[in-house]
Amino acid sequence: MSQDLTIGEIRLTPVLTADPPLLNTQGVHQPYTPRLIVEAVTAGGITGVGETYGDTAYLRLAAPLAVALPGHRVSDVNGLHDLAARVCGPAPESAVSSSVDASGLRGVRTAEKLRLSVVSAFEVALLDAFGKALGLPVHALLGGKVRDAVEYSGYLFYRWARHPDGAGEDDGWEAALDPAGIVAQARRLAREHGFRSFKLKGGVFPPGEETAAVRALAEAFPGRPLRLDPNGAWTVETSLRVADEIGGLLEYLEDPAGTVDRMARVAAATEVPLATNMCVTTFAEIPEAFARRAVRVVLSDHHYWGGPRNTRELAAICRIHGVGLSMHSNTHLGISLAAMNQVAAVVPNLDHACDTHYPWQTEDVITERLAFDGGSLTVSDRPGLGVELDRERLAALHRRWLADDGALRDRDDARAMRRADPGWRTQPVPRW
Amino acid sequence: MSQDLTIGEIRLTPVLTADPPLLNTQGVHQPYTPRLIVEAVTAGGITGVGETYGDTAYLRLAAPLAVALPGHRVSDVNGLHDLAARVCGPAPESAVSSSVDASGLRGVRTAEKLRLSVVSAFEVALLDAFGKALGLPVHALLGGKVRDAVEYSGYLFYRWARHPDGAGEDDGWEAALDPAGIVAQARRLAREHGFRSFKLKGGVFPPGEETAAVRALAEAFPGRPLRLDPNGAWTVETSLRVADEIGGLLEYLEDPAGTVDRMARVAAATEVPLATNMCVTTFAEIPEAFARRAVRVVLSDHHYWGGPRNTRELAAICRIHGVGLSMHSNTHLGISLAAMNQVAAVVPNLDHACDTHYPWQTEDVITERLAFDGGSLTVSDRPGLGVELDRERLAALHRRWLADDGALRDRDDARAMRRADPGWRTQPVPRW
Repeated sequence: MSQDLTIGEIRLTPVLTADPPLLNTQGVHQPYTPRLIVEAVTAGGITGVGETYGDTAYLRLAAPLAVALPGHRVSDVNGLHDLAARVCGPAPESAVSSSVDASGLRGVRTAEKLRLSVVSAFEVALLDAFGKALGLPVHALLGGKVRDAVEYSGYLFYRWARHPDGAGEDDGWEAALDPAGIVAQARRLAREHGFRSFKLKGGVFPPGEETAAVRALAEAFPGRPLRLDPNGAWTVETSLRVADEIGGLLEYLEDPAGTVDRMARVAAATEVPLATNMCVTTFAEIPEAFARRAVRVVLSDHHYWGGPRNTRELAAICRIHGVGLSMHSNTHLGISLAAMNQVAAVVPNLDHACDTHYPWQTEDVITERLAFDGGSLTVSDRPGLGVELDRERLAALHRRWLADDGALRDRDDARAMRRADPGWRTQPVPRW
Repeated sequence: MSQDLTIGEIRLTPVLTADPPLLNTQGVHQPYTPRLIVEAVTAGGITGVGETYGDTAYLRLAAPLAVALPGHRVSDVNGLHDLAARVCGPAPESAVSSSVDASGLRGVRTAEKLRLSVVSAFEVALLDAFGKALGLPVHALLGGKVRDAVEYSGYLFYRWARHPDGAGEDDGWEAALDPAGIVAQARRLAREHGFRSFKLKGGVFPPGEETAAVRALAEAFPGRPLRLDPNGAWTVETSLRVADEIGGLLEYLEDPAGTVDRMARVAAATEVPLATNMCVTTFAEIPEAFARRAVRVVLSDHHYWGGPRNTRELAAICRIHGVGLSMHSNTHLGISLAAMNQVAAVVPNLDHACDTHYPWQTEDVITERLAFDGGSLTVSDRPGLGVELDRERLAALHRRWLADDGALRDRDDARAMRRADPGWRTQPVPRW
């Protein structure tokens, strides 16, 4: 094979992408959210793309890795982690928290986890370039797909119609602030994308209002798998009360309580399966959580678990411990969705439909938007991830990032909430 | 890429390969041991090779998989396990044992484990063909090497000079039946291959004789890592006595006792690290063994763990549980060594030198014998595994298999021992 697989250049492009006013227990999404687009260009002129969180702490870690990578080969993804550990330097202290970070809703924010999220985008970009150079889809580089399509669930949010002061973009969706609003939202998501299961982002209103929304969903979509995720907003007692009240309607209850200890105590007292993407988000947290049987389902995320290969290893660990696997999503663009779909395609034990924010993203940096069919996304067999950068759109979203005065470059849902409610403070956990 | 990666044909060639009279707790190696060579030929005419156990139970499982695979692609290794589960049919009941199989010294012989050992050879053959088709080494298909060479330890055996009745081949080695013989063997192995650590296959003589051999090795090779492996022949009490007597000389003590329960009891009472390739040889055995802290090191084996990818997953599981990783070896030819070396090259947490029987194998089916340098084997960057079949040798060893009346087609160390000692019976476990 004559293809030169040496990395010639890495390009980093931070962007701000439109995000609707979705509510969660710690606030509301900003009008625009930061993402980082990573391009790996081979000496042979092939470009691969990756995507991850774009907050400044991630940019800080990504820059030295981008400098160090040229000269390595796109096939050398195993070496990325050691290289990153050597060159990235420490994460900014202000970005690191050893306890669950309330505002991020992504579990602990250790320095290693931040670095893994960065490495993930590089690994995806390398695999995309590698696949394009060989004419093979990324899944073939990960051992080949074991399914032709990946199922996703409809991700329901309490939300406003517009951001405070009319900021941001109008995405044409109504407000949803009560059971009827949530059901209407679910109907439209199901109509437009075919989703056959639903997850409600909870922790926004007192538990009784949210269980009423779940009951309304169960009535509107009888027999469909439903999930509720209050992001750790509840005490053990509240979690158990909710499990008792609506457990029979739920496929699983996601992060009702915010720590392994609380989750273990909930799990010990209910038959309702508990899932997490907050209390088990690093390999270091697994042994205790699994030993205490705190969770029955782990929502993996190829960003913060450190890339496609690490995600496969997480899946293997879940499999041998008899723990189910699903996939988490944060606000993301089409590159990350394409990557997630390739990873999901090669994981044998993907037991549940995956989460995705994608239907809420009105903007993208790829030429052809990915489309759900019957709630599923076909696994692309095109070379690499199967997506192409739209350089005009990328440049436009990058210009937005450049023009920002810093107010949006670090996602802060509480700060965004204060534009509507100046007295809003970071909420205590548990809140109810 | 225009290369057609579709599998056109699978060829299975059972062989009998010369094996010296190495002793273990259940008997002695046969003069010839069965191995199975798997060839995967793409529609584009590229041939990949794999190797595994060749006993009749494995051949029985391999045949239907060889029939089912043409039409699949060499990149589809993730699908091999499901395909094998569908088409291979059950393993012969006589070959299956849910408890540790004394004669095999390979831990449990579940039907699934037998199938995994077969799948492993197919996965290796597919990866070899895939790599050759792309012009890439197998390690690049597994994420790239993280080391340029893999270290092996010198594998010491109590042995006779010749097989009973002068059967088999003369390999030019002296008998080694006491400390002086073992030290002489170690010196020659170190001289010829450069090994810097040693493992003694024990369980052959009463423990006092074997600890004397370890003491003699420690004196002859001061400071070098030493291991002793009696294959589960000892009681908990004997294991602890040996650990107490020579623990300070050992890198680890391997399978002193034969079950997770006994190993856990030994581990609880000694600081000497325990390793295993007998009580944890399947993913199902991990949770209990790790929870009970029965072992500090797992000796992986890409054959019975189900291939290179499963071995990586085992490594990840060990890593997150803080369990060390080394690699086990059974009698094998150069194809398996080349595969092992590629796998070892991509596993970040390979904490110990690997075992290998290769120096004891005087025959091979590859054109160029692999050579240790300073006890290490360079990781090949040639396409695929980096080895080529020697078809004349393969045909010759296959003719030997064809000519056998069945006496050697299933390895049985106790039967081989009865040629020297007609009263020999399968030994009780524990024996001392």
